[in-house]
Amino acid sequence: MIGRKLCEIIARTGRLGESEVDKLTLVDVATPPVFEGSGCEVDYLALDISVPEAAERLATMRADVIFHLAAVVSGEAEKDIEKGYKVNLDGTRNLFEAIRLEGQRKSYFPRMVFTSSVAVYGAPLPDPIPENFILAPTSSYGTQKAICELLLNDYTRRGFFDGVGVRLPTIIIRPGKQNAAASGFFSSILREPLAGQTAVLPVSDDVKHWFASPRSAAGFLLHAAVLDSAKIGLRRNLNMPGVAATVAEEIEALRNAAGDDAVALICREPDQTIEVITSGWPKALDPSRAEALGFKAEHTVDELIKVYLTDDSPKG
Amino acid sequence: MIGRKLCEIIARTGRLGESEVDKLTLVDVATPPVFEGSGCEVDYLALDISVPEAAERLATMRADVIFHLAAVVSGEAEKDIEKGYKVNLDGTRNLFEAIRLEGQRKSYFPRMVFTSSVAVYGAPLPDPIPENFILAPTSSYGTQKAICELLLNDYTRRGFFDGVGVRLPTIIIRPGKQNAAASGFFSSILREPLAGQTAVLPVSDDVKHWFASPRSAAGFLLHAAVLDSAKIGLRRNLNMPGVAATVAEEIEALRNAAGDDAVALICREPDQTIEVITSGWPKALDPSRAEALGFKAEHTVDELIKVYLTDDSPKG
Repeated sequence: MIGRKLCEIIARTGRLGESEVDKLTLVDVATPPVFEGSGCEVDYLALDISVPEAAERLATMRADVIFHLAAVVSGEAEKDIEKGYKVNLDGTRNLFEAIRLEGQRKSYFPRMVFTSSVAVYGAPLPDPIPENFILAPTSSYGTQKAICELLLNDYTRRGFFDGVGVRLPTIIIRPGKQNAAASGFFSSILREPLAGQTAVLPVSDDVKHWFASPRSAAGFLLHAAVLDSAKIGLRRNLNMPGVAATVAEEIEALRNAAGDDAVALICREPDQTIEVITSGWPKALDPSRAEALGFKAEHTVDELIKVYLTDDSPKG
Repeated sequence: MIGRKLCEIIARTGRLGESEVDKLTLVDVATPPVFEGSGCEVDYLALDISVPEAAERLATMRADVIFHLAAVVSGEAEKDIEKGYKVNLDGTRNLFEAIRLEGQRKSYFPRMVFTSSVAVYGAPLPDPIPENFILAPTSSYGTQKAICELLLNDYTRRGFFDGVGVRLPTIIIRPGKQNAAASGFFSSILREPLAGQTAVLPVSDDVKHWFASPRSAAGFLLHAAVLDSAKIGLRRNLNMPGVAATVAEEIEALRNAAGDDAVALICREPDQTIEVITSGWPKALDPSRAEALGFKAEHTVDELIKVYLTDDSPKG
């Protein structure tokens, strides 16, 4: 979803920061959906980078900037341990290795933008989480992301590519249907009532978490693509800025945007499993390094709803 | 070296904590050196766990306790990136996966004692490094160890085995010859002068680092084998206690033990590369979690020298 939004922006503007983009190649396990591009050539490729030869083929294309978003989401990575490690860890490592080997053949030093997640942090957690706090994930998904962050640091330090890791907040409001992520309800309790439909709230109102909009997420990646490498230092993975909000604050923002009738569409159906999972998640974090590097996000849930209504709502 | 010392203790006493040991199997890429064992049966096996089938064979032996020490050392992992990742990362992951799959076949839940290293920490570092500080290694060796720590946490959380990670301080005084580790001089500037031989000191006197003896290192592993799992929590990797000392303090301890003539055998040959590497290493760390769990080490370099003269010196 974020990848699609990012590609739409690049294809439309034909730019990454100051640079013109000649060609944008979309790569996914299935052939990605075709969309209009007016700013640059757009190409599509179906490749599964969890197969080393596929990652090699990608590297031989010698892109200047690579956005790596491919991932099995948290719920699925927890349910299917083999698939999660294969896609999230082996896929990323294959890609990194392929780039290293391509550079051995002929000098090659692309910018590698890697999407990580706040799931690299696990309970017990301070609120907010300071910069330089231990990555001790409490999910296999978070473990896989944390491992890829370490690889990104090492491959960058050794000069195989120029990596920037972007620890995305939980993205709300996600358009479309709920995915298998345990965090899905943070979006659906806003999205469904805004469309006049009921939504299930599986956790208590005081659950607090860290959010940004799809627009900001795409903006993070675009900014990470053009960031001055020298300013980042050896720790290449950055906590993105975001909005710290409780479920209660989400509900109040929904009330502001769509009234009591919309709020009445939220059905409380406590789910102990999801309550336990979310209780281990970050409530807020210190994004000062990323902010100093120019990354920007929303400041309130009201803004997050406004962005959704403008960019992503089917009514919009 | 630590592995050998550990095995000698187990083979001699035939015990791990309160439990009797039936059988001890030593596994290494080459057939490990045979030694006397009186307390229990001792077996030898040449296996390379960076080959998945070899790791599977190990798992089918269904040991109650596994000590995993296999590693390509820091200097070598930096020089040969493929070998380092293959042995230190893939080897460990193969072993972990083989145990998970063996448990799928028939219930199996061994204690897995993994030796990590303070090299998981990288500059800039506070002195001392608090518990819960980010693992941001500045070497491929440290990266590989940090990744294995994450895997150990995840596999333990998911119930595939009962992992305990032991972040070893730099071990001094190592007996025998210098190995390829950049930290070798910390031992040799004591060991060689104690034997009346010259030693090269490649860094300045104010370089400070974190040490324990081989005896303590073996003691950490023995204690980790019998530790109550419930007391550890989800973060299974522990900073071991140690001695924080500068090179100057090492030299003074050498003077106490062997006089000015011994100190005069240290030749200062500054090496910018080693100076830079060691400047990124931990100076001291907070081992309070491990200490609360009963891990113990020396308190002074004088003690470290005494342990060497008793346990490991060729004269001893």
